[in-house]
Amino acid sequence: MLRFRKYLLAILLLIIQISFCFLFGFHARYVYAPVSSVKNLTFSAVSIVEYYYPMFMDIHVMMFVGFGFLMTFLYRYSYSAIAFNFVLCAFTFEWALLMRGYFFNWDTNGQQFAIDIKSLITSDYVAASILISMGAVLGKVNPFQLILMAFCEVPVQVVNEWIGRTFFCANDAGESIFVHLFGAYFGLAVMFVLFRSDMLDSPHQKSRYTSDIFSMIGTIFLFCFWPSFNAANTAGPERLRAVINTCVSICSSVLGTFIASSLVRRGKLDIVHVQSATLAGGVAVGTVAASNIGLHGALIIGTLAGFVSTLGFYSVLPKLEVIRIHDTCGVHNLHGIPGLMSGIAGIIVASIPEKSGFQDHLTVLCLTGGLQRSSNIQVAYQAAAVGLTLIVAIAGGLFTGVLLRLPLFSQESQYFDDKVHWHIPKPEHTISLKM
Amino acid sequence: MLRFRKYLLAILLLIIQISFCFLFGFHARYVYAPVSSVKNLTFSAVSIVEYYYPMFMDIHVMMFVGFGFLMTFLYRYSYSAIAFNFVLCAFTFEWALLMRGYFFNWDTNGQQFAIDIKSLITSDYVAASILISMGAVLGKVNPFQLILMAFCEVPVQVVNEWIGRTFFCANDAGESIFVHLFGAYFGLAVMFVLFRSDMLDSPHQKSRYTSDIFSMIGTIFLFCFWPSFNAANTAGPERLRAVINTCVSICSSVLGTFIASSLVRRGKLDIVHVQSATLAGGVAVGTVAASNIGLHGALIIGTLAGFVSTLGFYSVLPKLEVIRIHDTCGVHNLHGIPGLMSGIAGIIVASIPEKSGFQDHLTVLCLTGGLQRSSNIQVAYQAAAVGLTLIVAIAGGLFTGVLLRLPLFSQESQYFDDKVHWHIPKPEHTISLKM
Amino acid sequence: MLRFRKYLLAILLLIIQISFCFLFGFHARYVYAPVSSVKNLTFSAVSIVEYYYPMFMDIHVMMFVGFGFLMTFLYRYSYSAIAFNFVLCAFTFEWALLMRGYFFNWDTNGQQFAIDIKSLITSDYVAASILISMGAVLGKVNPFQLILMAFCEVPVQVVNEWIGRTFFCANDAGESIFVHLFGAYFGLAVMFVLFRSDMLDSPHQKSRYTSDIFSMIGTIFLFCFWPSFNAANTAGPERLRAVINTCVSICSSVLGTFIASSLVRRGKLDIVHVQSATLAGGVAVGTVAASNIGLHGALIIGTLAGFVSTLGFYSVLPKLEVIRIHDTCGVHNLHGIPGLMSGIAGIIVASIPEKSGFQDHLTVLCLTGGLQRSSNIQVAYQAAAVGLTLIVAIAGGLFTGVLLRLPLFSQESQYFDDKVHWHIPKPEHTISLKM
Repeated sequence: MLRFRKYLLAILLLIIQISFCFLFGFHARYVYAPVSSVKNLTFSAVSIVEYYYPMFMDIHVMMFVGFGFLMTFLYRYSYSAIAFNFVLCAFTFEWALLMRGYFFNWDTNGQQFAIDIKSLITSDYVAASILISMGAVLGKVNPFQLILMAFCEVPVQVVNEWIGRTFFCANDAGESIFVHLFGAYFGLAVMFVLFRSDMLDSPHQKSRYTSDIFSMIGTIFLFCFWPSFNAANTAGPERLRAVINTCVSICSSVLGTFIASSLVRRGKLDIVHVQSATLAGGVAVGTVAASNIGLHGALIIGTLAGFVSTLGFYSVLPKLEVIRIHDTCGVHNLHGIPGLMSGIAGIIVASIPEKSGFQDHLTVLCLTGGLQRSSNIQVAYQAAAVGLTLIVAIAGGLFTGVLLRLPLFSQESQYFDDKVHWHIPKPEHTISLKM
Repeated sequence: MLRFRKYLLAILLLIIQISFCFLFGFHARYVYAPVSSVKNLTFSAVSIVEYYYPMFMDIHVMMFVGFGFLMTFLYRYSYSAIAFNFVLCAFTFEWALLMRGYFFNWDTNGQQFAIDIKSLITSDYVAASILISMGAVLGKVNPFQLILMAFCEVPVQVVNEWIGRTFFCANDAGESIFVHLFGAYFGLAVMFVLFRSDMLDSPHQKSRYTSDIFSMIGTIFLFCFWPSFNAANTAGPERLRAVINTCVSICSSVLGTFIASSLVRRGKLDIVHVQSATLAGGVAVGTVAASNIGLHGALIIGTLAGFVSTLGFYSVLPKLEVIRIHDTCGVHNLHGIPGLMSGIAGIIVASIPEKSGFQDHLTVLCLTGGLQRSSNIQVAYQAAAVGLTLIVAIAGGLFTGVLLRLPLFSQESQYFDDKVHWHIPKPEHTISLKM
Repeated sequence: MLRFRKYLLAILLLIIQISFCFLFGFHARYVYAPVSSVKNLTFSAVSIVEYYYPMFMDIHVMMFVGFGFLMTFLYRYSYSAIAFNFVLCAFTFEWALLMRGYFFNWDTNGQQFAIDIKSLITSDYVAASILISMGAVLGKVNPFQLILMAFCEVPVQVVNEWIGRTFFCANDAGESIFVHLFGAYFGLAVMFVLFRSDMLDSPHQKSRYTSDIFSMIGTIFLFCFWPSFNAANTAGPERLRAVINTCVSICSSVLGTFIASSLVRRGKLDIVHVQSATLAGGVAVGTVAASNIGLHGALIIGTLAGFVSTLGFYSVLPKLEVIRIHDTCGVHNLHGIPGLMSGIAGIIVASIPEKSGFQDHLTVLCLTGGLQRSSNIQVAYQAAAVGLTLIVAIAGGLFTGVLLRLPLFSQESQYFDDKVHWHIPKPEHTISLKM
């Protein structure tokens, strides 16, 4: 039995790839959409691939480089952080292509779904959600458990977003509700179930000078490409606003973070805050990124987000352990709270129809009589999307956590240690160089 | 008083963010420009956002990843290098959005200025200028002083560029005069005032094997995206030339650097040269990047720039200390001298109207009767732009230096040391791993 | 004589730059092609520069960042890996601009060739080929030998591709045959000639924890931008398919690698596999990337490629030494075998005309009566392209190896050691910090 357990990952991945092969073969079709399918364009002719491709590449880099390196800060867990992020994201990308296809693009007549350039972007969005959850459990689960978590989380994320977009017609341009908020609370709920008190006193849960700088690679690529993340879904003047608002908000959250960090550290700074809280502005502006909130609106949201997120790292993070939540990467502060802020901003903006422009969005997608909606009703639907996301994420996470806790799958007793999973270059070789 | 001093950074940033919020709120408006606003396009229809966005993202990466990691080479100052670059650039981006708006796009009727996708690019250009100045003072000032420097430098840079572009109508496609030359001499002038002799014998001003490789991340991203930096301002055939010329010139400066480095190091090579001088070709071709200089012209400029810049690192850098200038990152060699070369190239090319195409540029922008200008007069105006930039940069830098030297703001006695500003992971933990 | 030898690199580069200057000056002309030159576009108007530029930048990053950092894994050879990749790629870029110009775009009337935005992309393709060969000889040759190798390899690569594209009209959308297969076997043939038994027991041929993570920077950027590599040559619906197929295939090869790695390592994983074999799917799908192979086709190709490539690292790599081939970066497993797989996939797909769409390609380029070709004849031509590439690569590599082995050029006795080529920061300084 133990003998068999160590091949669980290989067996699971093999079964998955074989199944996916049949599903792709039966149901997925390339569709080169005419450009008229893009809403809000003021120009008559352009190619659809080129319209989305540069932003897709940016987001792809955010997923693999950004999230991957962001998580390398643990000094003995850098191999695992970057490599598990890699395999998890690659798996999720495929799985999300399928799930989004079945739920969002299923063509009942043809018994198939279309794959176009936008499908690749939405798959990366789903992947973001799963990687956020991974941040909460980093170092405390094995790669088999990660793949299993993603396997459960993807359909839940897709269904939740499908309800939110199709029935509630919630405005969420930068996916702060459906991706960030969802991913954070799903991961925290998983962690709540998997919690064991010996996680708290692991001697390996800390960083090195070098690993902190590797982590900054992730931070800064996430920072730079965040405007693409928030704008890729949009077009025309909305895309312009999404880009500008995100740039201003995320720059402001850098400043907000430095303000808060130097206050709580009494004039010094903390690299942990710089690594994470600086990005909170990108999350917090997401839902309303394409709305006409003004650059001052984006600035306020971003500054607050950076400030609050830093305070979260300083004071909330340690307290979560009391309620049995150990949040390795602080996703509660970087994605949870700012995601909630973004949801609230979305509710506020929805109450001002000339700012939110929500009626432009209702017409096409909304199955629940969107055209007749007043702004008050839209406020309620925005709130419903936030509430439902919280409930679905926590419930889904608890269920998934129970599954991952089954003795068959459960983690070795060593946390935050590459040695459990990798052949590591022997230290004695490297001492000799002392570099 | 001392108690209060350590919160100076937080207080300054807070005041700034509050002021910016009002300025953005009162004066900044999103403008989704019609594509007809782009000059020199041979096509009738495309979206303005997509036209500029990919190059904007490249330049954004240059600012935050490129400059940020380039400066991590100091073995005990990598946290500060990457993080101060981060906060300084985020601040400058906002401040430049405002300043460029007031000077270049102010609409007197509407009492407001337009923010579009090009505004984001020009803000990054301004940021480049400030980050170059930061390279000169790196490790010798605290983050409060850096923000204060940027606060002073941004308006000076913007006004100088505004004069150069509006009255002199100087051709400077890749911003070598207004950004590189300006930034370098501004920073050196600041350093001249801040100079203290104990800076020279700090034991921490050196690199480690690992920090040198982190620095190469910056170098190579700057290298790759430099064509975007030089071409983003341009359109149509000019953009094609700017891309090709920059690619050829910066590749040539890599070769020029290796030639010079292996000569001065007698057959060996020096990683410091590879980190910096390799990029000199991007600076040196900037002013004339969009002109019809031929690939051979770009090759000559680039090779010379790499060669001269390497010699600068080898022989000029140590001598600058004699005249009280301590140039941490060698910005004089990477941005100062090549910027001057670019200015001279601009003067030469201006004398050959069929190469420079300067008359195409004069019509729209120039308030001083550009259409009637002969090429000789344009030569004089190009020279005037270089001269004015040098004077304004040095004068502005000296003034700013005096401000930064006020006892209230001045730096602790420890140079090039993260410990002054950061909580650092304790070394004893990391010895045990020896990786 | 010895005195003179150490300046060989500088002299060679100087002669090259001077010669290139004349060749560019006499023969290269900027051409801003009308967009009608792009085949398969369904839209009437767009600018040619913007159509290709974002993918060009991605590929540029792959060459300089991707290949450069991928090779930094050797713990004492990271300076050399990143810097020699830099100079070699910069040199090759210029040399390929010329060679591609003379062979592919020579205008006999005007006695000149056109340089446009596509020329930059094809130059990067040629550079990829040379950097792959560099992977085989990494750490065992000096920079002079690398430049000399590239000087010989570029014309051979260009001529081989010219024959394959012009006479055979082989379909090779992602350049897996003409770049990956060619580069791998050229480099291995060079290595065969240069082999000396003391290469095998060098104590420096290993990685450090930190250098392995630097290497992952290369891996992940190559992974992210591979869709651009395979799609840049294509347009319209073909480009869409190339992007989707490459995304699916390379994600699948990540999963295939993890399956194989955890099987051969008995439940653990090996970072060497993750660094390299994960990318095999990008290579293996290259030739047929733009064909209508279906997402399941891409998934099968990718999974197999990752699996086979991992097995290659595990079992083939050590055995190559028996036949006098020492393959530092395992290019045989990452580019050789997957390149061959891609060639075979191309042969299979060519036999199904409705999948390959090869007839669309034959019309424009093919000088050998492509329009009349049946699919069987196309199968033969695809096979001929693979066969010729193998023969030309091996023959060219052997010849080049003999040249590099001349006593004048040959390498010092120290392998995989930066000290031979660089001034290194002294270890004693860095011990004191122990970070």
